[in-house]
Amino acid sequence: MAIGEFVYRRRVQYKETDASGIVHFSMFFVFAEEAEHAMWRDVGLSVEPHAAEIGWPRVSASFDFLRALRFEDEIEVRLRVIGKTAKTFRYQAIIVHNGRYAAAGTMTTICVSKRPDQPLRAIAIPREIADRFAIVEPLEIPGRPGTDSRAATLDPLIPGP
Amino acid sequence: MAIGEFVYRRRVQYKETDASGIVHFSMFFVFAEEAEHAMWRDVGLSVEPHAAEIGWPRVSASFDFLRALRFEDEIEVRLRVIGKTAKTFRYQAIIVHNGRYAAAGTMTTICVSKRPDQPLRAIAIPREIADRFAIVEPLEIPGRPGTDSRAATLDPLIPGP
Amino acid sequence: MAIGEFVYRRRVQYKETDASGIVHFSMFFVFAEEAEHAMWRDVGLSVEPHAAEIGWPRVSASFDFLRALRFEDEIEVRLRVIGKTAKTFRYQAIIVHNGRYAAAGTMTTICVSKRPDQPLRAIAIPREIADRFAIVEPLEIPGRPGTDSRAATLDPLIPGP
Amino acid sequence: MAIGEFVYRRRVQYKETDASGIVHFSMFFVFAEEAEHAMWRDVGLSVEPHAAEIGWPRVSASFDFLRALRFEDEIEVRLRVIGKTAKTFRYQAIIVHNGRYAAAGTMTTICVSKRPDQPLRAIAIPREIADRFAIVEPLEIPGRPGTDSRAATLDPLIPGP
Repeated sequence: MAIGEFVYRRRVQYKETDASGIVHFSMFFVFAEEAEHAMWRDVGLSVEPHAAEIGWPRVSASFDFLRALRFEDEIEVRLRVIGKTAKTFRYQAIIVHNGRYAAAGTMTTICVSKRPDQPLRAIAIPREIADRFAIVEPLEIPGRPGTDSRAATLDPLIPGP
Repeated sequence: MAIGEFVYRRRVQYKETDASGIVHFSMFFVFAEEAEHAMWRDVGLSVEPHAAEIGWPRVSASFDFLRALRFEDEIEVRLRVIGKTAKTFRYQAIIVHNGRYAAAGTMTTICVSKRPDQPLRAIAIPREIADRFAIVEPLEIPGRPGTDSRAATLDPLIPGP
Repeated sequence: MAIGEFVYRRRVQYKETDASGIVHFSMFFVFAEEAEHAMWRDVGLSVEPHAAEIGWPRVSASFDFLRALRFEDEIEVRLRVIGKTAKTFRYQAIIVHNGRYAAAGTMTTICVSKRPDQPLRAIAIPREIADRFAIVEPLEIPGRPGTDSRAATLDPLIPGP
Repeated sequence: MAIGEFVYRRRVQYKETDASGIVHFSMFFVFAEEAEHAMWRDVGLSVEPHAAEIGWPRVSASFDFLRALRFEDEIEVRLRVIGKTAKTFRYQAIIVHNGRYAAAGTMTTICVSKRPDQPLRAIAIPREIADRFAIVEPLEIPGRPGTDSRAATLDPLIPGP
């Protein structure tokens, strides 16, 4: 049985904020990665089992930031598998707080062989891994392409999910 | 006099690596931000002077990762101002190691007013700030759109800059 | 009613590891702080409610490291309030994995007044906060003072708690 | 020729601050580690050369925090080798800003053998490494033991070095 979406919940920790009082933008990528790893555990896998010979570096990652997150906010990362090739997975990650979108992004990982003293080399995703994940449609994020409208305010009335 | 590009140099630190032995992908966003702040200092500005009433949160950020970086690597972040609106700046950040591209990304920041007890609100960039930055063309990164070719290998023969 | 000890559970995340394959030592301090904040929430408090005029910087922090932690390890932080003065709290934090001690440390925080444009200034802990926390005895960690014995091996047979 | 002390300079970066507007206390440990690695490079060594079979985990680490650091502060880490055993190094790290002590701490590292699929095991420091470092006296930090006096204020008039 394959999984195509997963919800990961956690709380914003103090170390994740910065001097502007909100979560540092680089942390959204960490949240997305944590959700990915939790999704893998949910199907009985680890992205990096002990002494693994394969790994999953990122090929690309992006986020649009819609609302600020603050210390102790309880957030959801809604992760979806939106693409799969012979060697890569593509995820959509939507971060939700209080029923409203805080950020939406994508992340592509690539399967590599890691051997001591050798450079990382892309390889085909082992079938027992590929079979656990099913592709689903990405969610449409209202106003997401509208950088212009977002430029008007950081607290837009985007209806939550 | 306005600045449109800037080169920021630093070394990869141990804390920035992860268990796969390479720099964690979220750190590339931190490198880009450090370069932005260094560029501002270079024109006599701070993105956040003491008791500032404006701030510069990110509206979006993205990176394509071309090559892994490792502990003690000496890197350059080549930052370019590639867009400017009434309220936002857009940057291109290219990370170079040993004369080869390690990653290329973009980052859009928005000028906001921060007052205690009030939500962040987008405002026009003060003219004395906007005037310091000139728009330049983004660099073309060979193979950058080619996620497909990148999928073939993490160590492609992309000619360095 | 006052609380003197608290157990905080979480999993090691990938970003918290470093190139040696284990959790970076600075993260143990973050784990201890997360436990402190969770303990405060447990008694209905936040160390930093919105627009707070007091804060809790660290006056000192230390850890002895007994065993390495790895990606996806499930850990417990056992936090105890072991000291309380007019202006400070002192905590013991013991990190446990698989029923064995991974690290043991202490952390002293000080109550400060934070006003815009003023330096941090130590103040008396408000009574409604001080009354929520009771002092308990620190746990004895077998072999903890024995830096020498620990020097013999990083995987000593210290009986777990 | 052996080295016993080293000064490492760097600037506080935005990611290193937290919502209280100052540098997160866990980062002082990272600053000390960066100084250690820079000191090793200064004598032609790396704590972790490519494909290294030895590593240097921390056995203990502690800091007393005397003054807050803020975004863009230029700091010095004054690192001293204050102890050396068959398997360990002990460092003192003093962090100085604007000619005044911001923090003072110690850090003990242990030499371990790292082989794939084996637990870390403490080993004797290779002689070609041990010989590069000479023991020096720790600096006395005025007021450092006086947690009590420090409790009075976070901005004491401790004379700078």
